[in-house]
Amino acid sequence: MNTRIVLINTSHPGNIGATARAMKTMGLSQLVLVDPLSFPHAKAIEMAVGATDILENALVVKTLDEAIRDCTFIAGTSARSRAIPWPVISPRELAEKVIHSTSANVAILFGREQSGLTNEELQRCHVHIQIPSHSDYTSLNLAAAVQVIAYELRVAALSQTNTPTQMEWDYPPATSQEMEGFYEHLKQVLIDADFLKPEAPRQLMTRLRRLFNRTQLDSMEINILRGILTALGKPQSKL
Amino acid sequence: MNTRIVLINTSHPGNIGATARAMKTMGLSQLVLVDPLSFPHAKAIEMAVGATDILENALVVKTLDEAIRDCTFIAGTSARSRAIPWPVISPRELAEKVIHSTSANVAILFGREQSGLTNEELQRCHVHIQIPSHSDYTSLNLAAAVQVIAYELRVAALSQTNTPTQMEWDYPPATSQEMEGFYEHLKQVLIDADFLKPEAPRQLMTRLRRLFNRTQLDSMEINILRGILTALGKPQSKL
Repeated sequence: MNTRIVLINTSHPGNIGATARAMKTMGLSQLVLVDPLSFPHAKAIEMAVGATDILENALVVKTLDEAIRDCTFIAGTSARSRAIPWPVISPRELAEKVIHSTSANVAILFGREQSGLTNEELQRCHVHIQIPSHSDYTSLNLAAAVQVIAYELRVAALSQTNTPTQMEWDYPPATSQEMEGFYEHLKQVLIDADFLKPEAPRQLMTRLRRLFNRTQLDSMEINILRGILTALGKPQSKL
Repeated sequence: MNTRIVLINTSHPGNIGATARAMKTMGLSQLVLVDPLSFPHAKAIEMAVGATDILENALVVKTLDEAIRDCTFIAGTSARSRAIPWPVISPRELAEKVIHSTSANVAILFGREQSGLTNEELQRCHVHIQIPSHSDYTSLNLAAAVQVIAYELRVAALSQTNTPTQMEWDYPPATSQEMEGFYEHLKQVLIDADFLKPEAPRQLMTRLRRLFNRTQLDSMEINILRGILTALGKPQSKL
């Protein structure tokens, strides 16, 4: 399994370097930067100390889509609770989940220094991770948050050597791209049926995303659901 | 119980500020600096962000003795194993020990950025803490090491009050009866659309049950799904 750390719109290159260092101490190597403000940058190299190889191999992309397209399990760090509750787990629960996951590619998303992840980005996630900070002061530094998550992943990996029950599954998990294809199809069918009104969408698609994201669909289930949409949709929406 | 973080001979004031921030996010407040190279310092304030109160209240002393005189349990972080084996525990074990300790004052020692704690300092400790870093690269940043330890202390403190990550949800879970009503409706719509053939049902409903059962639907989601079935189904199947 591959676990990538995805930093979105990072402002301070020093945080990118410190993230690389935090990752390397815990045996992680895949860093993806979505539209960073300044990268490459001397400050990133300085803060990475001996982990410059991670910076050199970092993938820089324009959009979150490019960063997670092939991922089948996506977790996002979030300090706040949201209007629509999403499955929230602790770093330790995340590590357990990742270790026992059948997903080939896992992405863990970290948002902007000031404002974190947007609602739209959070809705791309299967789960949200909340680091149990003190209610008086929740402001973890970005690289410190990566350090905590990476540390839990490492502890879980080390403890895994006494392998607990691995769940067998019949089909591979759906990729992020397959999920987005399904949501697009679903949305179009609901608009055609006049069930979803684009001018007043309310929380409908958000609720449907939350429902299907927390299930971790497999590729066969995606096929079935899209088959149902095609069978039930109006002819013009049969994609 | 009071747990203090003791930094010995810190070279970079930025690390002192980042340590203050790491502590505050995890609800720790007592910082003791043994003979720091530069303190107070603008870089410390900058890196502390909102945790400057911890810097202002930090105790600056000349010797380790002054820092730990009234402590009854002392733990020191150490990357290396020493010539004379010492009790070594993980950050998690440390947190358990501290939480259940009867000591009024606990000190956790962090050494120099380059060279850590001296043998003499390590021998002042009851236990040594080893953060399980990757053998290829063990060089945690000082504040990152504080963050990991402080995080474990907080997780242990929270688990002691017996509050696991409580997930708030907006609607009550669907009852078994609601689930069965939904499956009946779904089945009828799929039969009407000729997608499910009663004479050759294959595993379709089984797969759909597995999908929706493992999600633990809430009552609002059931309403939405049945609304969709009604909107997309043939008129005769609008139950």
